[in-house]
Amino acid sequence: MISKAKISFIKSLHSGKGRNEAGLFIAEGTKITNELLINQNIKIQSLYATNDFLEENNLLSNNNFEVFEISESELQKISLLSNPNKVLVIAEICKNKFDVSKLKNKLTIVLDNVQDPGNLGTIIRTMDWFGIKNLVCSETTVDVYNPKVIQATMGSFLRIKTHYVNLENFIKEYFSKYKYNIYGTLLNGKNIYKEQLTQEGLIVFGNESKGISSNIENFITNKISIPDFSKSKSIDSLNISIAAGIVFSEFKRTT
Amino acid sequence: MISKAKISFIKSLHSGKGRNEAGLFIAEGTKITNELLINQNIKIQSLYATNDFLEENNLLSNNNFEVFEISESELQKISLLSNPNKVLVIAEICKNKFDVSKLKNKLTIVLDNVQDPGNLGTIIRTMDWFGIKNLVCSETTVDVYNPKVIQATMGSFLRIKTHYVNLENFIKEYFSKYKYNIYGTLLNGKNIYKEQLTQEGLIVFGNESKGISSNIENFITNKISIPDFSKSKSIDSLNISIAAGIVFSEFKRTT
Repeated sequence: MISKAKISFIKSLHSGKGRNEAGLFIAEGTKITNELLINQNIKIQSLYATNDFLEENNLLSNNNFEVFEISESELQKISLLSNPNKVLVIAEICKNKFDVSKLKNKLTIVLDNVQDPGNLGTIIRTMDWFGIKNLVCSETTVDVYNPKVIQATMGSFLRIKTHYVNLENFIKEYFSKYKYNIYGTLLNGKNIYKEQLTQEGLIVFGNESKGISSNIENFITNKISIPDFSKSKSIDSLNISIAAGIVFSEFKRTT
Repeated sequence: MISKAKISFIKSLHSGKGRNEAGLFIAEGTKITNELLINQNIKIQSLYATNDFLEENNLLSNNNFEVFEISESELQKISLLSNPNKVLVIAEICKNKFDVSKLKNKLTIVLDNVQDPGNLGTIIRTMDWFGIKNLVCSETTVDVYNPKVIQATMGSFLRIKTHYVNLENFIKEYFSKYKYNIYGTLLNGKNIYKEQLTQEGLIVFGNESKGISSNIENFITNKISIPDFSKSKSIDSLNISIAAGIVFSEFKRTT
């Protein structure tokens, strides 16, 4: 049995305000939970699971976190998924201290005001596939601990370091330190298929409808575009996470 | 004012059963509506819009469809979006007769049991960008007229021909007729970056968790993969619409 107070506490973590106050976030489903259980960096606070998950995973003793057995219908009450999958975990938000010098000799992804949780989660999942480890987001970008982001990463949030910063100050400091290329995807950029792409620097993606904001665009040294093969005037853009996938592929293809 | 009967009729179109019975589907928002208004192939049955949309678009006379002015709160009642955008259109489902001979000398995308509406919509939007015009889906694939698919296409469903068929019979007929390559994205395929990709044939994508079904995999002549750069054992796949975007880019890049 799960108490009403617990249900209301878990639901409070659906919002950014609730997560900040508690320093906790929600992850759901067997795949992400199994990754959390073996992860050394994230501390689990509590785990709510159905009987069959608990039997499969032998979790009822020797844990540093509370374990609650709940019914399917109780899981439905605390879950954000339309089809909850056996288990919901509450874990501690881990704030990495950000240090620009960690980005030396690396490709780093920068998101300027990305709003859709599915897009952020999918971008993190795709970065993981392509072995790109660092993500820097504007303070206006959707929270990586939003449950919809966590689910869309399919566990990849555990392997990608995500930082929220004042983007303009960050880019200034980064560029003055390294002088690496600062790539930005813009509609009027150069054909990405024909560019010499470096294996260090920033790749900036902008907001879903407004693109990269003008104060950030000023710092872009290399404007790039994915060519439009449509010959149609109606289509105006690719989905941002699709564009990111193609751009990551182009940067990695030639290595 | 919108009647209760109309609200319940519009809501019936959220389900596949309702759409099939009525032969109608829903599209929302100013971008898609403006494309529908100038499109010659799709017949609009009725349009529900707020006063400011109607004033901007001068729709109150000389239309072949009914126009209803509604309030923001009425729009909220009939909309599926969390932030409805001024207008909702009901239009007639258009069943194109399917003819394999239309696929001669072309690349055609094939989806085997894709379930997520966002994935199908995004794949259609991305096909449009890359100038790929024909999509063949298994009968088990999510309905292209599902409102979430329509919204995710951002209007591209108007330019892509989508057909639902018995996939096994289709591929047999297609291959015996054309002998084109049948590409399939599988985890154990050849590195797509190193393959000679043809500009005609099929590219098959499978279900989000199960991949391409075994009876369809038998027909694949060219198994391809996007290389995994992660060096991590935990990540098992790219999101299917991301994989599709990268694959389309690879097929078009070299043309």
